[in-house]
Amino acid sequence: MDNRPIGIFDSGVGGLTVFKEIRDLLPSENLVYFGDTARVPYGGKSVQVIQRFSSEIANFLEMQNVKMIVVACNTASALALHKLKTETSLPVIGVIDPGVRAAIKAAGNGVIGVIGTRATINSGAYQERVTRLRNGVRVVARACPLLVPIVEENLMNSEIARLTLEMYLGDFKKMGISSLILACTHYPLLKTMISDFFADRVTLVDSACETAREVKEMLVARRISIEDVRHGHEQFFVTDSPEGFAAIAEEFLGRPLAGECIQHSWQTE
Amino acid sequence: MDNRPIGIFDSGVGGLTVFKEIRDLLPSENLVYFGDTARVPYGGKSVQVIQRFSSEIANFLEMQNVKMIVVACNTASALALHKLKTETSLPVIGVIDPGVRAAIKAAGNGVIGVIGTRATINSGAYQERVTRLRNGVRVVARACPLLVPIVEENLMNSEIARLTLEMYLGDFKKMGISSLILACTHYPLLKTMISDFFADRVTLVDSACETAREVKEMLVARRISIEDVRHGHEQFFVTDSPEGFAAIAEEFLGRPLAGECIQHSWQTE
Repeated sequence: MDNRPIGIFDSGVGGLTVFKEIRDLLPSENLVYFGDTARVPYGGKSVQVIQRFSSEIANFLEMQNVKMIVVACNTASALALHKLKTETSLPVIGVIDPGVRAAIKAAGNGVIGVIGTRATINSGAYQERVTRLRNGVRVVARACPLLVPIVEENLMNSEIARLTLEMYLGDFKKMGISSLILACTHYPLLKTMISDFFADRVTLVDSACETAREVKEMLVARRISIEDVRHGHEQFFVTDSPEGFAAIAEEFLGRPLAGECIQHSWQTE
Repeated sequence: MDNRPIGIFDSGVGGLTVFKEIRDLLPSENLVYFGDTARVPYGGKSVQVIQRFSSEIANFLEMQNVKMIVVACNTASALALHKLKTETSLPVIGVIDPGVRAAIKAAGNGVIGVIGTRATINSGAYQERVTRLRNGVRVVARACPLLVPIVEENLMNSEIARLTLEMYLGDFKKMGISSLILACTHYPLLKTMISDFFADRVTLVDSACETAREVKEMLVARRISIEDVRHGHEQFFVTDSPEGFAAIAEEFLGRPLAGECIQHSWQTE
């Protein structure tokens, strides 16, 4: 048993989908969430910058004495996970492997689709993992930069969203893909629309639940889970306004934040 | 005569529209451009963060020994201009006043519309300046967060862009506005579409040219302009990859960068 918290980080608020699944599956664990809201989004930025930002956050979480680090951001998982693992002795889990495993299981011998930010798709990380875990399976990937702002503008179910899906996913439909990895924390909010778009013929893989399951397995395997009937505590760090974060967080979690939210500033020289 | 360069900054690449107008109008001036590409965009962030980032950049430009600072970013102009002026003895020019003056001139007694990022519109800076410069004139404002990603996805003239304009500007059309301030550096790239949307009945104000004119006036008034037949030199600083910036800059400028592009990292403690 190890009472230290699990550290979870994202470029902004989207990682709260992963936080929520971990909380639901592991109610007695203590959780620390870090959202880099002053520098969000990461999805259009370079490998070097995404790696530097990710290392800074992982360092910060280590100083908060976490027992494990969950990279809830798809972009950071795709570009920085490997580097983070070489920089810390703590276990580090990203969202890619759990998502890929679920997609392979669902797809059978069919084609797997992946959608995400420009940085995630250009990294080739998902495509590479699929091929490594199931040789011979066909994988198609597409960056969809307009989907995050559409979610943030609350345009789910609008004609604008429908045309945008048609533009990004029209080819996947023609190809007849079997499963689709939603490789960006915002996309699950478009699940119903995407499902309708494919006439329910495609299994949508939301990495958040798969990742939470993997976190639980690792805690159990390493015997560092908390066995307690009490609820774990929660703490949040953000780099932009805590008030702005708390408001959006409530929409993501379906409840108000249950712990303090502290602003952390990256001090520049 | 003062040979020091003019410092121009933006959250990213968009401020190059202002850079270009200044270059065209003042060919012998030396120019230093700063694009905070690792932390872009500013438009959805808090006042405190936008002010802190702007002060850091202004400090950096002072250390580059500039003779004046041009805030090419609408969001930073709306939220940080006043603070920057108290922090430096250098002249500081933003994009708001030049745009507002042009809009008032064009509107006559008609209604003035303003579109920009969430932070720009919520600040009320444009609305307040219009009212201060021409008491009694009616001004309507609207945040349009989807327009920047539409430009970045090169969706000008698409049905998606048309529906988005309808959503954001439908009310302005019904009201019969006379002039519209494009209060974000990306929007001029949608000029033709917006003009068509209003059936050419609205004067579109692009702050970039107006700002360049004001920069020239100030240099002349303070006798710090460069009178020379030689072309001024150019230097660029960005916080994300210089290669990525150079590629997009070429589209904005219609020519390759004519000076070195250096990466500056905000070193964190």
